[in-house]
Amino acid sequence: MSSPADTHSVRYEALCKEIDASKLDALLVTHLPNLTYLTGLRSSAGAVLVSASVVRLIVDSRYLTVAKGVAESHPSLRSLEVVLVGQSYDEEIYRELVKLGVARVGIEAAHFTVQRWDWLVKRLAGTGVTLMPVEGVVEDLRLLKDRTEVERFRTAAALLAGAVEPVLRAVRSGRSEREIAADVEMQLASAGFDDRAFPTIVASGPNSALPHAQPSRRCVECSDLVLVDFGGIYEGYHVDLSRTVCVGEPTDEGRRLHEAVLAAQTAAIETVRPGVRASEVDSAARAILARYDLAEAFGHSTGHGLGLEIHEAPRIGRVGEPGADVVLQEGMVFTIEPGVYVPGVGGVRIEDDVVVTPNGCDVLTADAPRGLAADSDST
Amino acid sequence: MSSPADTHSVRYEALCKEIDASKLDALLVTHLPNLTYLTGLRSSAGAVLVSASVVRLIVDSRYLTVAKGVAESHPSLRSLEVVLVGQSYDEEIYRELVKLGVARVGIEAAHFTVQRWDWLVKRLAGTGVTLMPVEGVVEDLRLLKDRTEVERFRTAAALLAGAVEPVLRAVRSGRSEREIAADVEMQLASAGFDDRAFPTIVASGPNSALPHAQPSRRCVECSDLVLVDFGGIYEGYHVDLSRTVCVGEPTDEGRRLHEAVLAAQTAAIETVRPGVRASEVDSAARAILARYDLAEAFGHSTGHGLGLEIHEAPRIGRVGEPGADVVLQEGMVFTIEPGVYVPGVGGVRIEDDVVVTPNGCDVLTADAPRGLAADSDST
Repeated sequence: MSSPADTHSVRYEALCKEIDASKLDALLVTHLPNLTYLTGLRSSAGAVLVSASVVRLIVDSRYLTVAKGVAESHPSLRSLEVVLVGQSYDEEIYRELVKLGVARVGIEAAHFTVQRWDWLVKRLAGTGVTLMPVEGVVEDLRLLKDRTEVERFRTAAALLAGAVEPVLRAVRSGRSEREIAADVEMQLASAGFDDRAFPTIVASGPNSALPHAQPSRRCVECSDLVLVDFGGIYEGYHVDLSRTVCVGEPTDEGRRLHEAVLAAQTAAIETVRPGVRASEVDSAARAILARYDLAEAFGHSTGHGLGLEIHEAPRIGRVGEPGADVVLQEGMVFTIEPGVYVPGVGGVRIEDDVVVTPNGCDVLTADAPRGLAADSDST
Repeated sequence: MSSPADTHSVRYEALCKEIDASKLDALLVTHLPNLTYLTGLRSSAGAVLVSASVVRLIVDSRYLTVAKGVAESHPSLRSLEVVLVGQSYDEEIYRELVKLGVARVGIEAAHFTVQRWDWLVKRLAGTGVTLMPVEGVVEDLRLLKDRTEVERFRTAAALLAGAVEPVLRAVRSGRSEREIAADVEMQLASAGFDDRAFPTIVASGPNSALPHAQPSRRCVECSDLVLVDFGGIYEGYHVDLSRTVCVGEPTDEGRRLHEAVLAAQTAAIETVRPGVRASEVDSAARAILARYDLAEAFGHSTGHGLGLEIHEAPRIGRVGEPGADVVLQEGMVFTIEPGVYVPGVGGVRIEDDVVVTPNGCDVLTADAPRGLAADSDST
């Protein structure tokens, strides 16, 4: 397995090729997950300026010590230098751009605000530096996970799958959605995650029919469908899992919804392999749900990419949706999470994480029980 | 007390005055806390277009039901109409702008990305609609909390103060920072908060000297200073509190740091009243710490505003820092949280939330014990 230092050198080389192909002299990276990807630094502020000859990591005093440690751990990136922010980030960025003497500098347009852009353009007037809006440069590199990243995902997904049984034990009649959600997050901490990946969803009974429900004070009742969607961050990487269970005896309709979603998820997973479009995976899930007359009950995409963000490319979306025509390749990591939502009745979502392999995919969270009974691991 | 419907009418009237004063025909609000402030809707996506004659609340299908509910609860805002997103938010915004037939439309430059700006400008070419970057229009209105908001803060702060004793009981020798942080977040849920306001900080021993420490696997040891910084969201409003305690017998230096910070915090709180600049409150804390020869050990601002965001105006910062020259007025709500951080020894931060009253301020979290002992409420 490659060392972290090698990993970052490979990423830097790949980025320099992209910068060159985009006819840029340098790229200013301000989106923090991209900064983490390129340098290994995890912080709540920072910027990195990359050209073929230099890497300038710009941080404020809070992150100076850790940024210097990052610089020392990349001996192969001899050009990496840490710059301490004086007055403000944007003033420091301006100074570094002028010092570097570059003409065309890419700016991450999907993340940079109009306020910062206007300020920097004005400040740079007459210096010969021109800012160019660019999109997805670092994100494109992040789409294919390298071996180090896939190993991290395997560890993280095993921890998450291991948490499913204690999590589902927390789902009991008479407990409120909020109490259960607090328990779930406690389990994430016990499992060894750095933090939750997003606010845990616990949606019971009629609330489970709302795909974006927030945990409420509602108490779980007998025969309720209870949807639990939770995830953790492990060494910067996000994993995500949903299960829907029933406390006590499920209704016939509850059983039917669960059976349909499980079949749709299985079909989608079986479709995943290199060369297939993301939208084909989505279509496989939709075709099964249509057979159950539940096509209309599935309003969201089948999945989303995972990585240094909880939602990233590829989007496993419907034919015609932005990004859903991407061709799957080995090393992509994403969720498969079809769901059905029937107002007044309830909803079911089943979500696992997969990595694309040379001949198909590995379900990273395969060890987690998928059954409808809250207290059993039967499928 | 005014009803929520009245509250939103008052805000709408005030905003229309600002729009007019800025020589705009309309304002496009895309920053979600601002959208919540104007409409009451809490969502993860949405936009609101405001002119003197119309309010258009633009949402996707996930939020249609709740947005319609919001519209019905504002009978005084007869002009509020809900618009459902078809293809994309930006396409819908474009259509509404053209339909409205306005010439100059303000865009929230501190939040709108260059990517969206470029797309919308191009789409609007030839329509006669011109986008104008504006800053802080809704934020300026949010700076002074109305009676409804202050009541909400009082309730939230009482819940948070009540959680301090159980939180500090979780700080015990041999427990890891992460275990304690998980316990703290469980206490927030039990106290009745919608969610945590930010990831809880638990920093023990040498880690307490890092103002931005994340909970680690380090176990608390005897005589460690343990800094706990936590907060909750209650009906959309954020409250925030820090305490630093010692398990067992504190060292002399630990006692001295705690005494200094408590004195600095007291001095800062006593300085708060209408007519005083935010930087004067900051200076009061710094003057005390200088007497303890700890001026250099206090690297951050004395406080930050609270509201629909965990960090908002006013900034209780140093003389010369952006925003720190704001003159305090009745109804401003913010934290007072001086801290000292001594590498190798540890750190102390004590944080409470205050609201400016006609003659001074109320400490909203006054009931929370401030002592150094983890298991006592002595001050």
